[in-house]
Amino acid sequence: VEIGLGSRTNTIMQSAFFKIAQVIPYDKAVEQMKKAIVKTFGRKGEGVVKMNNEAVDQGAAVIKVDVPAEWSKLEGKVVINGVKNAPDFIKNFVQPINAQKGDDLPVSAFKGMEDGTLPAGTTAYEKRGIAVDVPEWQMDNCIQCNQCSYVCPHAAIRPFLLDEKELAGAPSGLLTKKTNGKGFEDLQYRIQVSVLDCTGCGNCADICPAKTKALVMKSLESQMPQKENWDYIASNVTYKDTISPKDMNVKASQFAKPLFEFSGACAGCGETPYIKLITQLFGDRMMIANATGCSSIYGGSAPASSYCKGDDGRGPAWANSLFEDNAEYGLGMALGVEKMRDRIERKMKESLTEVNAETKAVFELWLENKLNGAKTMEISKAVVKTLANETHAVAKEILALKNYLAKKSMWIFGGDGWAYDIGYGGLDHVIASGKDVNILVMDTEVYSNTGGQSSKATPIGAIAKFAASGKRIRKKDLGLMATTYGYVYVAQVSMGANQAQYFKALKEAEAYPGPSLIIAYSPCISHGLKNGMGKTQEEGKLAVESGYWHLFRYNPLNEDEGKNPFTLDSKEPDWSKFQAFLHNEVRYTALLKAFPADAAELFKASEDNAKWRYSSYKRLAELDYKIIE
Amino acid sequence: VEIGLGSRTNTIMQSAFFKIAQVIPYDKAVEQMKKAIVKTFGRKGEGVVKMNNEAVDQGAAVIKVDVPAEWSKLEGKVVINGVKNAPDFIKNFVQPINAQKGDDLPVSAFKGMEDGTLPAGTTAYEKRGIAVDVPEWQMDNCIQCNQCSYVCPHAAIRPFLLDEKELAGAPSGLLTKKTNGKGFEDLQYRIQVSVLDCTGCGNCADICPAKTKALVMKSLESQMPQKENWDYIASNVTYKDTISPKDMNVKASQFAKPLFEFSGACAGCGETPYIKLITQLFGDRMMIANATGCSSIYGGSAPASSYCKGDDGRGPAWANSLFEDNAEYGLGMALGVEKMRDRIERKMKESLTEVNAETKAVFELWLENKLNGAKTMEISKAVVKTLANETHAVAKEILALKNYLAKKSMWIFGGDGWAYDIGYGGLDHVIASGKDVNILVMDTEVYSNTGGQSSKATPIGAIAKFAASGKRIRKKDLGLMATTYGYVYVAQVSMGANQAQYFKALKEAEAYPGPSLIIAYSPCISHGLKNGMGKTQEEGKLAVESGYWHLFRYNPLNEDEGKNPFTLDSKEPDWSKFQAFLHNEVRYTALLKAFPADAAELFKASEDNAKWRYSSYKRLAELDYKIIE
Repeated sequence: VEIGLGSRTNTIMQSAFFKIAQVIPYDKAVEQMKKAIVKTFGRKGEGVVKMNNEAVDQGAAVIKVDVPAEWSKLEGKVVINGVKNAPDFIKNFVQPINAQKGDDLPVSAFKGMEDGTLPAGTTAYEKRGIAVDVPEWQMDNCIQCNQCSYVCPHAAIRPFLLDEKELAGAPSGLLTKKTNGKGFEDLQYRIQVSVLDCTGCGNCADICPAKTKALVMKSLESQMPQKENWDYIASNVTYKDTISPKDMNVKASQFAKPLFEFSGACAGCGETPYIKLITQLFGDRMMIANATGCSSIYGGSAPASSYCKGDDGRGPAWANSLFEDNAEYGLGMALGVEKMRDRIERKMKESLTEVNAETKAVFELWLENKLNGAKTMEISKAVVKTLANETHAVAKEILALKNYLAKKSMWIFGGDGWAYDIGYGGLDHVIASGKDVNILVMDTEVYSNTGGQSSKATPIGAIAKFAASGKRIRKKDLGLMATTYGYVYVAQVSMGANQAQYFKALKEAEAYPGPSLIIAYSPCISHGLKNGMGKTQEEGKLAVESGYWHLFRYNPLNEDEGKNPFTLDSKEPDWSKFQAFLHNEVRYTALLKAFPADAAELFKASEDNAKWRYSSYKRLAELDYKIIE
Repeated sequence: VEIGLGSRTNTIMQSAFFKIAQVIPYDKAVEQMKKAIVKTFGRKGEGVVKMNNEAVDQGAAVIKVDVPAEWSKLEGKVVINGVKNAPDFIKNFVQPINAQKGDDLPVSAFKGMEDGTLPAGTTAYEKRGIAVDVPEWQMDNCIQCNQCSYVCPHAAIRPFLLDEKELAGAPSGLLTKKTNGKGFEDLQYRIQVSVLDCTGCGNCADICPAKTKALVMKSLESQMPQKENWDYIASNVTYKDTISPKDMNVKASQFAKPLFEFSGACAGCGETPYIKLITQLFGDRMMIANATGCSSIYGGSAPASSYCKGDDGRGPAWANSLFEDNAEYGLGMALGVEKMRDRIERKMKESLTEVNAETKAVFELWLENKLNGAKTMEISKAVVKTLANETHAVAKEILALKNYLAKKSMWIFGGDGWAYDIGYGGLDHVIASGKDVNILVMDTEVYSNTGGQSSKATPIGAIAKFAASGKRIRKKDLGLMATTYGYVYVAQVSMGANQAQYFKALKEAEAYPGPSLIIAYSPCISHGLKNGMGKTQEEGKLAVESGYWHLFRYNPLNEDEGKNPFTLDSKEPDWSKFQAFLHNEVRYTALLKAFPADAAELFKASEDNAKWRYSSYKRLAELDYKIIE
């Protein structure tokens, strides 16, 4: 931290190793390490080289710590980090695998999971405690906007509303304040951090808009007492997301439980906040087909599942397919569900005159609202309840299909390598089908998980593998391509730039009765942000302000009303900030080091292209779609 | 012909077989055949059923022909149909294979073809004589527009210009007339049909714009004397395509030799005329990557090759790859050629101060024109000639690469199943690359060669396999999608609707120094044209007139000049003709029979969609691209 390398400890640890182990003379080791640093980081600039050299030097300052003699007699035992009452699945299955003892599991350990399905929500038991610093809530400064929670990549900071009873049993350190707003008079407000799940990125504190920051990063050690508060809340406090309906606005959405939490994504990940919000709004009736990539790794590295369930036991059903066919995989799920629901419809219609009056009424209600997600969630419960008293044979048949009574929110997730490149043929096929699926593309403009290869989403001038001298051609406009169908909802978003625009796009996309495509700008560790991963939200904002990324929504439903389906949501960029934006990320500045002449040319081309693209969006946004009879 | 079934002889022959063979009582056979007709053709309408029933009845009118006794002693011998002096390759390789004796070929027969390369132009030796009727030229009526030749799917009708010497040796029946136009004073004009290569579709006669038709369909037998004329011309008359440069206009282009001829395509094929013109303009420096499909079958069913060479021995290099990677295959060829040509460039530059003055001059000329196709064709000859006298070692190195001196015209061919569906991911990847390749999509709106499966190019309401009750969603707009890159030349054409527009688009596409995509409306036997395959050009015209298909060009170069890159080439359709267009093709009318209620709805949706698409093109065409400084 003092050197400026943040939480990157590898160089200092390497030096310390050579100092202690003496496998080669330490002087020689220092010489070679510094040589390697120039070779590895030379392109990234002198600053980075200097910091790493200093890390080598500081590694020499080792302190000998004597280990108590009794440690040699300790018994090996798996300890679940501070979690009480872990379920058997965690104790008998997850922990052995995480402790590299998976090979020792007997076949019988897989009983009940023969089809490969694993229980959800296991990451809550990891409590990795990897953060150096975690946010401390400054209650008096807090304006209760919930933005910290909205942007947190790991769902480790959340607002809670506590009623009298919940407050009564709380630990004494659990302080609360009066909740703002009408309808909340009887509830106390609190921001709670799960300090052992936090990765310490600091985006929450950075984004906090309070006059004096309501979140301050403090050492994990100093915040350990918060663990007790978190545990109390996790077990005793409900998520009150209906007083203001959770789909009302950004703030209200954060009172809903994230059904995606504590994933293994990088600290500050630009992708995960997008997913988290989707699970908050639709997670209780959601299915996800996830393309291989970062999102499949942090989504479900067996036996871990970062997708979890709400108090009603409902949560996303998640599965992962390959790069080249994930969209098709999701379409298959959608078609399967459609068939089941059509069957329910047919069964209900066929028996409508034969069932009792109560059943008839609830069937009719369901039939009328079959395609309405939120309503079928409610009606499904009524159907199940009513059928308990129905003697007609149809009752049994429909109860057998009860999991399909609620309209599913079908999602297809993946990165740009999948969506723009390898899986694009399938993505195109799926949106062309006109089926009601929702696609989220987390666009990091590079194959992130496989090691930073160039994709068709990589912009001109960016360095990537297979584009070591800078990508030579402009980024593909996936969103605009999808709009040509005329029946595909498309949105291009950047949460950091406009939280409400993403919120709106997400709701519109999910509600649209056809294919939807959301392309989400996702700052990534592979970009080499000079401001660090604690500023990913800020970076998403700069991207739009500078004209590097544009926000738009294309809603086919507008056209039926004689309105332009294309809405440009970002305002005229401040082009003077464009070059500064590029100079703020190593994927661009590395080019300056390696190929300075090319860099000048390519950076200009990048700006020209951004302007070209903005002009084209502007022209589209100004088109007249008035219906002339 | 009398019944109205044209050249479809199968039903009548089947009936005759049962009449003669008496394998079952003939009455029973008739009964069963008529039952089968209703089952097979019922959907296609009463007319078709009636005609087939009549064919069954007429099949009974068999006439006994006595075979001369000496026929029993004839020796089996492969006869090359009327072709004198066939090359050994034809006699020893092609003919045995075509006679189903390929298994008997010794390994040594493949000597010189170990890499799988086969000689070009073998279809000229097939002379299949499959036409019932072929066109007879009415010299006095002819206005010398050359349109018959432009539209001929099999290159079986061509205009020739004969000089005095060529005329002198001609057979007496070879009549000619004075050639129209300046510069042609010394040449006589003639339209010559190769009657044994003609398939008898009749598009030439149909398209003939002369006041009184200059082409009349007559029985093949009556036209057999034309064979002598064709043979004379094929061996003795040159193609005079430089008096008016062949790339000047449609008419001039037809004096160039088609380097694609006598293919196995269906009579009246809507695809092949597009390919033929490309070979006339660029065939002498052309490489083709051909997706599997009709175009790969008629392009090169081993050992047949319908691609041939000009008098200079140059012609298209052609190869076929699979559906899923043909675009990539073509890109690979382009990249390979680019590397070779870059190597030539480097070698020339490195040796520029060391070679003799003449070599230096020709190197400089080449370097200056490296990317100009037509010019490098000329300069290449000069380079080769000059290097014969060059002592510098570079001479040998460049002569080893002489096949790469001329800039190649790189083409990627395929149908809509390839381009819109299975190969689309690759096609997108290739156009995104920005490389100078040209793509021709022959859009039949259905997987033609594999048996009529629905593709994303299949329009709403059309019947196809996997869309037996009519396609339910609108056609994908491949062209518009490609325009979103901003650096891809795109044209949507229909030769039958506007010959000049295709000609222009083709020239622009080839000249464009980046990826080009031409989407060509191709009437197909799978459409079930009520007017028959002799009216495929007419059908392409009706498609545009009625608003079913639209013509446009998107040329990125325009934008540099502050002009709109998008040009809508077809005028406001006559929408009153739209429904009639649908009712003129069995792929639509079959729906009327099978699902009348759906048909009404889908046909309306089809028209609505056509209007929607036209409106969108119109809006794009009206955009203002003025550069504001």
